[in-house]
Amino acid sequence: MASATSATTPAVRVQPGTPLRLADIDPDNNAPFDHKKKVEKRLDELRDQLSDLQEKLYAEHRQSVLLVFQAMDTGGKDGTIRNLLTGVNPAGVEVAAFKQPSAEELNHDFLWRIHQHTPGRGHIGVFNRSHYEDVLVTRVHGLIEPFTWQQRYQDIVNFEQLLTHGGTRVLKFFLHISKEEQAKRLQARLDNPKKRWKYEPGDLKERQLWDAYQVAYQEALAATSTPACPWYVIPANDKHARDQAVAEIVVAALAEMNPQPPAATFDVAAQVIA
Amino acid sequence: MASATSATTPAVRVQPGTPLRLADIDPDNNAPFDHKKKVEKRLDELRDQLSDLQEKLYAEHRQSVLLVFQAMDTGGKDGTIRNLLTGVNPAGVEVAAFKQPSAEELNHDFLWRIHQHTPGRGHIGVFNRSHYEDVLVTRVHGLIEPFTWQQRYQDIVNFEQLLTHGGTRVLKFFLHISKEEQAKRLQARLDNPKKRWKYEPGDLKERQLWDAYQVAYQEALAATSTPACPWYVIPANDKHARDQAVAEIVVAALAEMNPQPPAATFDVAAQVIA
Repeated sequence: MASATSATTPAVRVQPGTPLRLADIDPDNNAPFDHKKKVEKRLDELRDQLSDLQEKLYAEHRQSVLLVFQAMDTGGKDGTIRNLLTGVNPAGVEVAAFKQPSAEELNHDFLWRIHQHTPGRGHIGVFNRSHYEDVLVTRVHGLIEPFTWQQRYQDIVNFEQLLTHGGTRVLKFFLHISKEEQAKRLQARLDNPKKRWKYEPGDLKERQLWDAYQVAYQEALAATSTPACPWYVIPANDKHARDQAVAEIVVAALAEMNPQPPAATFDVAAQVIA
Repeated sequence: MASATSATTPAVRVQPGTPLRLADIDPDNNAPFDHKKKVEKRLDELRDQLSDLQEKLYAEHRQSVLLVFQAMDTGGKDGTIRNLLTGVNPAGVEVAAFKQPSAEELNHDFLWRIHQHTPGRGHIGVFNRSHYEDVLVTRVHGLIEPFTWQQRYQDIVNFEQLLTHGGTRVLKFFLHISKEEQAKRLQARLDNPKKRWKYEPGDLKERQLWDAYQVAYQEALAATSTPACPWYVIPANDKHARDQAVAEIVVAALAEMNPQPPAATFDVAAQVIA
């Protein structure tokens, strides 16, 4: 089904084509990232490395990165993105948040609006929600048939392969919280006037569909995790452990991509700047 | 390799996955569309049918059509599009001409700029040149490796499948002229001041690569003609026969799609307009 990415992370890399059971992955698991002070120190290091790697990626102007974030409501997408990318040069980062599609977007295939937001060479693109909504929310609300979501799994795999061929590294994160943790976070949004803007009464209706969403997620993740474009399930009840788990994966992938600024195309020594 | 679409057309439908030899298809073949007067009469009928079908497609607002036109220089893309679609309500037709990609377009995968121009529900989209340039001109000029154009064939097939899943009928036309016919047409552009704007000295350099283009075309067509998204080779030395061959295929496809304006959602008889 799924395997830990290594002995030293709570993140679980979803294995292509094998069933996934989210109930078997503990959203509270934060070992070995369970020491808050150590995590904060390590996160500072990782952000520095990410900042350096992003600058090289930008200078190289050949490859790009796409980070996809999905989660149940309150799962921590906004916080994870903020904590990962604050400090990175925003000129090289494009964050796209996908809401309800517009009428014009609904007039086209479901990947049409997504494709417009894929990152250009040298950029890090971030999707806060994504094309996966079209096999999740539409399925759970009975708007599409099994035939359609199966077709879309294949369309998604093909689409991400196209991006990979074009030089984009695609990494996908499901921030995995428990139903109890969601209750706490929704209550906190209600109670805290500063957070209340994030709360909508409709959130409670979605919460009633929790089990259907878990089934839709585990099927979609198993069907669309590929060797080149893997899904990671990130236990996310502990926000610090969540942030480190994501950052470790992103930094390792960028380090492996090894972006190299181009060599000078002129004789450096001959340039006399008077 | 390829088979005539029926006994009554010079058009050749390219069979998926079997080699194609363009040299075996006579660009002069215009039988049985070799009677100019009859062709003109039939073209008028076909345009009327197309106009009716387009209005139904627009009213139905569920399906769409994408027509892809490729040809060697002077092959007749502009003329075919004009002769097919003049008379159809332009509100339901979108023609996109793809030239040299911009810097921003080159920063993304080769289908990024193409996807933005795919037709929305109810529309007929027309590509004057297309994503196929990225396995033709780039190949002939040695800008990509065999590995890359093979990868792109697969990306193209997947992309057109996505469009098909989204309700778009994709029809692709290669307007097939002879090298001698191109010489005549280039000369006519040079000689006729009204046509001279279409001539560029660079056209002669491309003409020298004629054979390489024919090889690139026949491979690309064979690799990307599918049952759902077929390629048609249209003998195109005779412009009238070419126009009828294309129009017959487009009208037949639209008739098969059978677009149906939606039924009234209200009681028609109860509407009293005072």
